[in-house]
Amino acid sequence: MSKNISIGLLGCGQVGTGLVKLLNQQRDFIERRTGLKLVIKHTLVRNPADKRAVKAPGLTKDINRILGDDSIDIVVELIGGLDPARAYIIKSLKAGKDVVTANKAVLAHHGREIFEAARLVNRQVYYEAAVCAGIPVIRSIKEGLLANHINLLMGILNGTTNYILTRMSEEKLSLADALKQAQQLGFAEPDPTSDVSGADTANKLCVLAALSFGIKVAPKDIYTEGIMGIELEDIKNADEFGYCIKLLAIAREVAHNKVELKVHPTMIPKKHPLAAVRNEFNALYLHGSAVGDMMFYGRGAGPLPTASAILADIIELGNQPAFVPTPCVGTTPDVHRGAYNWGDKKILPMAETVSEHYLRFPIIDKPGVIGKLATLLGRHNISIYGATAALVPTKKQLGNVRILTRPAKESQLKQALSEINRLAIMRGKATVIRIEE
Amino acid sequence: MSKNISIGLLGCGQVGTGLVKLLNQQRDFIERRTGLKLVIKHTLVRNPADKRAVKAPGLTKDINRILGDDSIDIVVELIGGLDPARAYIIKSLKAGKDVVTANKAVLAHHGREIFEAARLVNRQVYYEAAVCAGIPVIRSIKEGLLANHINLLMGILNGTTNYILTRMSEEKLSLADALKQAQQLGFAEPDPTSDVSGADTANKLCVLAALSFGIKVAPKDIYTEGIMGIELEDIKNADEFGYCIKLLAIAREVAHNKVELKVHPTMIPKKHPLAAVRNEFNALYLHGSAVGDMMFYGRGAGPLPTASAILADIIELGNQPAFVPTPCVGTTPDVHRGAYNWGDKKILPMAETVSEHYLRFPIIDKPGVIGKLATLLGRHNISIYGATAALVPTKKQLGNVRILTRPAKESQLKQALSEINRLAIMRGKATVIRIEE
Repeated sequence: MSKNISIGLLGCGQVGTGLVKLLNQQRDFIERRTGLKLVIKHTLVRNPADKRAVKAPGLTKDINRILGDDSIDIVVELIGGLDPARAYIIKSLKAGKDVVTANKAVLAHHGREIFEAARLVNRQVYYEAAVCAGIPVIRSIKEGLLANHINLLMGILNGTTNYILTRMSEEKLSLADALKQAQQLGFAEPDPTSDVSGADTANKLCVLAALSFGIKVAPKDIYTEGIMGIELEDIKNADEFGYCIKLLAIAREVAHNKVELKVHPTMIPKKHPLAAVRNEFNALYLHGSAVGDMMFYGRGAGPLPTASAILADIIELGNQPAFVPTPCVGTTPDVHRGAYNWGDKKILPMAETVSEHYLRFPIIDKPGVIGKLATLLGRHNISIYGATAALVPTKKQLGNVRILTRPAKESQLKQALSEINRLAIMRGKATVIRIEE
Repeated sequence: MSKNISIGLLGCGQVGTGLVKLLNQQRDFIERRTGLKLVIKHTLVRNPADKRAVKAPGLTKDINRILGDDSIDIVVELIGGLDPARAYIIKSLKAGKDVVTANKAVLAHHGREIFEAARLVNRQVYYEAAVCAGIPVIRSIKEGLLANHINLLMGILNGTTNYILTRMSEEKLSLADALKQAQQLGFAEPDPTSDVSGADTANKLCVLAALSFGIKVAPKDIYTEGIMGIELEDIKNADEFGYCIKLLAIAREVAHNKVELKVHPTMIPKKHPLAAVRNEFNALYLHGSAVGDMMFYGRGAGPLPTASAILADIIELGNQPAFVPTPCVGTTPDVHRGAYNWGDKKILPMAETVSEHYLRFPIIDKPGVIGKLATLLGRHNISIYGATAALVPTKKQLGNVRILTRPAKESQLKQALSEINRLAIMRGKATVIRIEE
C-alpha cells in the first residue's frame, strides 16, 4: 500500500547525520501519515571507513553508484560549498533524479544554471533547508503567498551574528567577548568569517530574492556589511534612542523593476517584531500586497531543524504522482514555469539607496563641534533629526557626537563622511548604522 | 496552455468581496505564475438584486445552480456560521467538488463529519483561511512540519482581543475604553461577544488541535475564558512582574495520549516572542520535535489577507493533476489518509491541568493578611513564589495582595479560592490569571 521513495544522500556530516537520525526515528510516523516509505539507499562520503555517529546506509565514495542507480528517486545534497556540489546536483538532475539541497552557497552562486538544468529535464530542485532551516519560508513564499506581490523582505538569516548582537545588547559584552561565548556554545565556528562578514546572510538573500522577485542576482551584486564594526557604545546608543541593532538582509522593491538588495547592521525600533528575535533564532519579515506584514520565526540552523525541512521536501516530491512544475514566483511577464523567473528586474546600485542613519562621530570636544558637523552634513543635502554630544567618562575633551539623519542618499552621505573624517576634530572614523522603521 | 479552474462562490460579504477584488487584480499574475486561470462562475447570495461593491459573476440565490454545474471544480464557502454552511459543504463534496472554506465555526463544530464526507468521495477540504487568515499556518503544519511530532501550540488567534489588551497595556486604557476604540476602528464588531468571550479563539483551536494532534474535539471540550474579567490593575501588575497579558489558545501534549486544550488570558514573559505581537496582529507559536520553537506572525483577519489564503488553497487544489490525499497530521497509528486522523487521544480535564498563577486578592488591609492567604493556599498544596501587598492610593486600609504561585493543580486552586473568597478580609473575588513561561 505504501510507496517506496529511494534516496541517495551526498555527504554525511552534521546535517547528514541529523537526517539519518531523524529519518530512523520518524520513518514509521511519516509512513503512517503520508503513505511514503523513505529509504536512504546510498550515502556518498569521502572515506567509508571513517567512524561516524550513525550507521549511514550504503556508504560509498563513488558518485556514479548513485547516479547510475535507476531506483533512486531523490538525491539529497548535503556536501555544502560550491564544488563538487554544483556538478553533482546537475549530474543528478540529468540522471533523472529530483534534488533536495540545503546548500545556500551553491544556489546563490549557481542557482540559475541549476534551475535551468532542472527545467530542461523536467525535474525539480527543492531547497527549503537552505534558508532558515526548518522554518517553512520557501514553501510559504512559493505556495502560501502565491496570490501576493511581495515587495519587502527583511530577514535575520544568520543565528551566529544574532546571538552575538543579542549578548552584546543584553549583557553589555564587547563584540570579542560575545563572539568567544558563541564559539564556546557552538553557535559560532572556530573561523566565523562567513557568518560575521555577512556572506552567509547574503547567500540566503540571493535565494530569497530570486524566488520572490524573479531577479537575476549573485552574491557579488549584494551590498554586504558584517557586524565586526559594531561597538558596544553603538548598541548602548541604539538602546537610548529606542532601537536595537540586528544584522538584516533587506530586499525591497523601490520602483517598478528596481529592487534594493543589501545586508548590513540595521537599527530597528524596539517594538518591531524583528527586535524580539533573540539569541540564535532567525526570522523572515515580509510584506505582501494582500496579506500585509508577516513574520516567520524559529531556529535557522542545527542538524534536526535542517533535517526537518529536508524531509518535508522529500515528502512533497514523493507525493507528486507526476511531474508538477513548481509555481514560479516572480513579477515579470516572461515566466518559465518550473524554474526561477529570470526577469529583467534591476538591482538598485547601493550608492542610490536612501536610508535614515545613525552616525557616531568620535570627536575632541570643543565649542561649535556639533554645528560644524551639522553644517557639513547639510551642505551635502543631509537633514538631521537631532544631534547630541556625550563625553567619554573620565577622559577630558574626548566625546562622541551622535546624529540621526532623515532619509539620505548613500552617495551623498559617503561624500559628507569622507570630508568629515578628515577634520581635525575627529579622533577616528565615523560609525554609520542604517535605520529601518 | 493554461488550465481553467471554475469556482462556485457561496456568499459575497466582506471576505467574498475581497476575494472577487483580489482575483480581478491578480488573475493574470496568477496565471503567469501557475498556469491556472481562475474563474468565478456562480456567486450564491441571498438577494441578487442587492447593491454591492464589486461585480460578482453569475449571481444566484439557488445553490443547485452550483451543485448541478459539472464544470465547477471548487466551491468556496464564505457564508460563515453553522447552517446552511455545513449542508452546502457536504452537498458540494457529494457533487464531486473540492471545497475551500474560511469558516472556523463549521469546521470546529462539524469538522469530523465534513472530513469523513470528503474522504468517502475522494475530495478535499482546504481551510488555510479559517485560522490566522493569510498566514500559512495550516499549510505549514500539514506540509512543512510533517516530519515533526508537534507537542505544543500557543496562539494569539483573535485580533480584536489582542488589540484591546495591547491598548490597555500601552495606553493604560480601561477595558471598556479599549473596546470602544476597537469598535470605532473596525477591529471589533458592534456585538463583540464571540471575540471577547474567547469563542472565536476556541473554534480556531479546535481546527488546529484536530490537525496537529489528530484529536476528536468540539468547542464545548475546550475550557474557554474570555478577556472581560481583565482589569487595568492586572495589566499593570503583570508589567511590574515582567509579564504581559495575552488571550492565548493553548494545546499541549502533557502525556502520551493526553492533551491539554484551553483558551484563557495568560501572562507571558515580556521577552517571549508572543509578547511582541501587538494590536490586531495574530501569531501561532509552536514546538516541533525536530524544529524546536517556531512562530508565525501576521494579520489574522481582513478581506484581503483572508482572500490571499483562499487563493493559495484554490491554486494548490488546481495544480493537482489528480486526487492527492492530503498528508494527514496526527500521532496515533490508525491513520485515515486524506482526512483527519481521529485517534484516541484524550483531552485532559481542566481540573487536572497544572499551571503557575498570578492571583490578586482585593483585601481590607490588616496585619497578618498575607500570612493568612499564604497559609490557606499552602493547606491546599499551593506553593508560592512570593506575595506583595499594595494599598489602593487614597483609600485607607483597602489594598490588593498579589501572589505568584508555583505550578498548582486547577482543582486545588479552585478549592482554595472558594474558601478564600468567603473570608471576611476579602472585599471582592480573587482574580486568577494563568502564567506560561
